[in-house]
Amino acid sequence: MSGSSPVTRPALKLTHEGALTMLAAAVAKASEMGVPQNINIVDEGGNLLAFVRMDGAKLLSRETSLSKAITAASHRQPTSRLNPADEIKLSLAAGQRLTNLEGGLPIIIEGVCVGGIGVGSGKGAEDVEVARAALAAIGAQDQIP
Amino acid sequence: MSGSSPVTRPALKLTHEGALTMLAAAVAKASEMGVPQNINIVDEGGNLLAFVRMDGAKLLSRETSLSKAITAASHRQPTSRLNPADEIKLSLAAGQRLTNLEGGLPIIIEGVCVGGIGVGSGKGAEDVEVARAALAAIGAQDQIP
Amino acid sequence: MSGSSPVTRPALKLTHEGALTMLAAAVAKASEMGVPQNINIVDEGGNLLAFVRMDGAKLLSRETSLSKAITAASHRQPTSRLNPADEIKLSLAAGQRLTNLEGGLPIIIEGVCVGGIGVGSGKGAEDVEVARAALAAIGAQDQIP
Amino acid sequence: MSGSSPVTRPALKLTHEGALTMLAAAVAKASEMGVPQNINIVDEGGNLLAFVRMDGAKLLSRETSLSKAITAASHRQPTSRLNPADEIKLSLAAGQRLTNLEGGLPIIIEGVCVGGIGVGSGKGAEDVEVARAALAAIGAQDQIP
Repeated sequence: MSGSSPVTRPALKLTHEGALTMLAAAVAKASEMGVPQNINIVDEGGNLLAFVRMDGAKLLSRETSLSKAITAASHRQPTSRLNPADEIKLSLAAGQRLTNLEGGLPIIIEGVCVGGIGVGSGKGAEDVEVARAALAAIGAQDQIP
Repeated sequence: MSGSSPVTRPALKLTHEGALTMLAAAVAKASEMGVPQNINIVDEGGNLLAFVRMDGAKLLSRETSLSKAITAASHRQPTSRLNPADEIKLSLAAGQRLTNLEGGLPIIIEGVCVGGIGVGSGKGAEDVEVARAALAAIGAQDQIP
Repeated sequence: MSGSSPVTRPALKLTHEGALTMLAAAVAKASEMGVPQNINIVDEGGNLLAFVRMDGAKLLSRETSLSKAITAASHRQPTSRLNPADEIKLSLAAGQRLTNLEGGLPIIIEGVCVGGIGVGSGKGAEDVEVARAALAAIGAQDQIP
Repeated sequence: MSGSSPVTRPALKLTHEGALTMLAAAVAKASEMGVPQNINIVDEGGNLLAFVRMDGAKLLSRETSLSKAITAASHRQPTSRLNPADEIKLSLAAGQRLTNLEGGLPIIIEGVCVGGIGVGSGKGAEDVEVARAALAAIGAQDQIP
């Protein structure tokens, strides 16, 4: 069983405490900026771990920001790095959850992608700024060069 | 406009701070009980305000607990008070979000229903206990006599 | 960061080699029994890892067997252990993926649930027999007492 | 019945053994290339026959690669041969499963299209290379001139 074809491999999971720490830091940053946001934290399997919609955030941005989180977790890189020429066909072929909108960042800890954060309701750059503040709060790698 | 047929009426909204306070109290209670939970707070329109899935909570209970929160907010009463003989046909006719499972409570403040909380992954009574702790944390009315 | 509220926790993942080993063992057992099957292996997040539909297996059993796999992974126990009185309302409240049909088993290795297997197209007991053969092939715990 | 207007016509079906042979060859090629992939084999009706997601493959590429397999089986030609000017409107009109992304090949045996293979998580050319290795393993016609 444990010979040349192992059945399991070790992995790392984001805890709910880690996710709530990210949420709090994101809310604090968004409040400071005066831009209410939808904030989604998903695990590496794309399943929601934590979420908050701030007072005044756009309702439909809930869906866009969730897509950003799932895309970042799936591709293990910030959203908005796909070739713009491909983004519509990729989104359609993926059942629309795949997005190239700015505001999704992978959550990388000790070199392992443990999930993604997706922020939406502000301008793209504002969404990214809030996501970065959440990553910083748990000591995750910053994916923006 | 402001005469006998007013166009608007005053309302009350749960803030994201209120929702996050509920989330924290629910997590604390569930941790104390040793029963990891999915916790959903929705507003009076049934839209998600805040969510957390605790480490070890059942994945599919995410959906059942969301259904509980939406049902409690919609009906402005605890779930599980529908006539069991009607619960399946009501659920089907409502597009399945309506549920009679225990663990959903309305959030009532100053007599106004501002949303619902739905908890799921434990036994029904455990789910209710966690939801009540969240209501207590914001001084909401307790709906369980 | 690494104080009283850790951001990550160690975990275990089923490899694709492990999933393919399960698939091969399940196909061998089903062939021996003369009962073609749909066989699904999902990870602990409910995402499909490996699948095969055998010649002659029922087409719609693909969906039922996937639901079995996801339910077993979510609840970390064999399907068909829910209270029959609750199974319809649980399924409806969970968006129908939750099922109490026989033929879903959790994949438990070193005490950790790393996913679920769902088998469907035969009789319930036949589905379970095939799932157990797959678990045995990777040395996973047998959940049937 | 068997006169000038026959009620049936002979057909050819890919077996599950054939599909599993393709899966194994694709996994071997992808491992050799160091590029983990999602690999889907569908029958001529677009229904999934076999699937594997390799360790480290992108989660959302599961959906894009399934779309590639279904498109190749439907059109009986490699994906990416549609006029780029038409690809978005075709995808939308087809309910989104039709894609022009590289990485889908028809499975043609004795001149008959018995299904499609769709590979995704690498670059387009890498996906195609893996799909071709799978075709070669069962002696299917290579569709890339």
